[in-house]
Amino acid sequence: MGYSIPTLAHLASQFERMPAVGRKSAQRMAFYVLGLSDDAAKEFADAIMEARRTVKCCKVCQTLSDTEICPVCDDPKRDHSVICVVEDVQAVMAFERTREFNGVYHVLHGVISPLDGIGPEQLRVRELMARLSDDSVKEVIMATNPTVDGEATASYLARCIKPMGIKVTRLAYGIPVGASLEFTDDITISRALEGRGEV
Amino acid sequence: MGYSIPTLAHLASQFERMPAVGRKSAQRMAFYVLGLSDDAAKEFADAIMEARRTVKCCKVCQTLSDTEICPVCDDPKRDHSVICVVEDVQAVMAFERTREFNGVYHVLHGVISPLDGIGPEQLRVRELMARLSDDSVKEVIMATNPTVDGEATASYLARCIKPMGIKVTRLAYGIPVGASLEFTDDITISRALEGRGEV
Repeated sequence: MGYSIPTLAHLASQFERMPAVGRKSAQRMAFYVLGLSDDAAKEFADAIMEARRTVKCCKVCQTLSDTEICPVCDDPKRDHSVICVVEDVQAVMAFERTREFNGVYHVLHGVISPLDGIGPEQLRVRELMARLSDDSVKEVIMATNPTVDGEATASYLARCIKPMGIKVTRLAYGIPVGASLEFTDDITISRALEGRGEV
Repeated sequence: MGYSIPTLAHLASQFERMPAVGRKSAQRMAFYVLGLSDDAAKEFADAIMEARRTVKCCKVCQTLSDTEICPVCDDPKRDHSVICVVEDVQAVMAFERTREFNGVYHVLHGVISPLDGIGPEQLRVRELMARLSDDSVKEVIMATNPTVDGEATASYLARCIKPMGIKVTRLAYGIPVGASLEFTDDITISRALEGRGEV
């Protein structure tokens, strides 16, 4: 390109590395920053550093939190005998939005994926096992995503946990509410049929 | 929402203010930042502050530049007697990508828009007139966008400049290359017909 402003191009390249941001969007974002007031630009830059600095993993459940122990683990009204095992913090947020789950979480920060060289050691499995060792936990709900790797991770963990005498459950498969059967994939339909319940 | 991390939510809100970024994307971006190394996060934050600090308007053509005089205005090989008047820096970049234009630019930083309270005083019109006063300019090309406000701005400027004995031209209207007539709007087709040339 004949014309470019190095500092602006550098800023755009920072935005372009973010998920789902293309070259054009990144450039538009860089222009947006140039249009900010000095205070607003500083607030933006500080928010990046601040988030990196203060957001850490909860010591108990490994979710992200800006406190040592996250609000869920710290809440005595939650049922600490039921642990819902999820892949990532986004899943915790999804469950919390429903306001239906009163137990606590454990965030694995990924799934077992031999192709990517990720085994149980790379995940927060050791921390999960430590939580299960004190007999207070009655049920572990496997809530990894319904992908091949998510399934494999759930089965692996179930095999490790069952011998400890703890109930292990899995989220139900089925037709998503509001979906149409016409556009639902075959495997989901088979699973929904398998898991059918009496009315 | 039952669960939120204030620092993360604050960072996401910064991203959400950017053009074309929704709540979900903003959250994904905030998670991306948390996953950065300390150095990468610092580079990102610095890029924001750096761009705000060093990118200024070129003293001559008012385009954005991190030098006092932009590379185009500073280039003795460009034809400084032809000024292309555009709304914004994005337009300069678009022209420069074509490598077809050898003149120089003038960036208005907007268009006249009475509804938004933007008159010639809010734009870089005074700077344009100052450039035209020394007799070296032979032609001014009006290259504002083909919108109502862009047209109005072009006509207004043409009326101011013509009496100075300078040639004023306007970009050609017509069918975009590669477009299909079926999906081209009526006004564009009328203009293409009006502006038809001999083969």
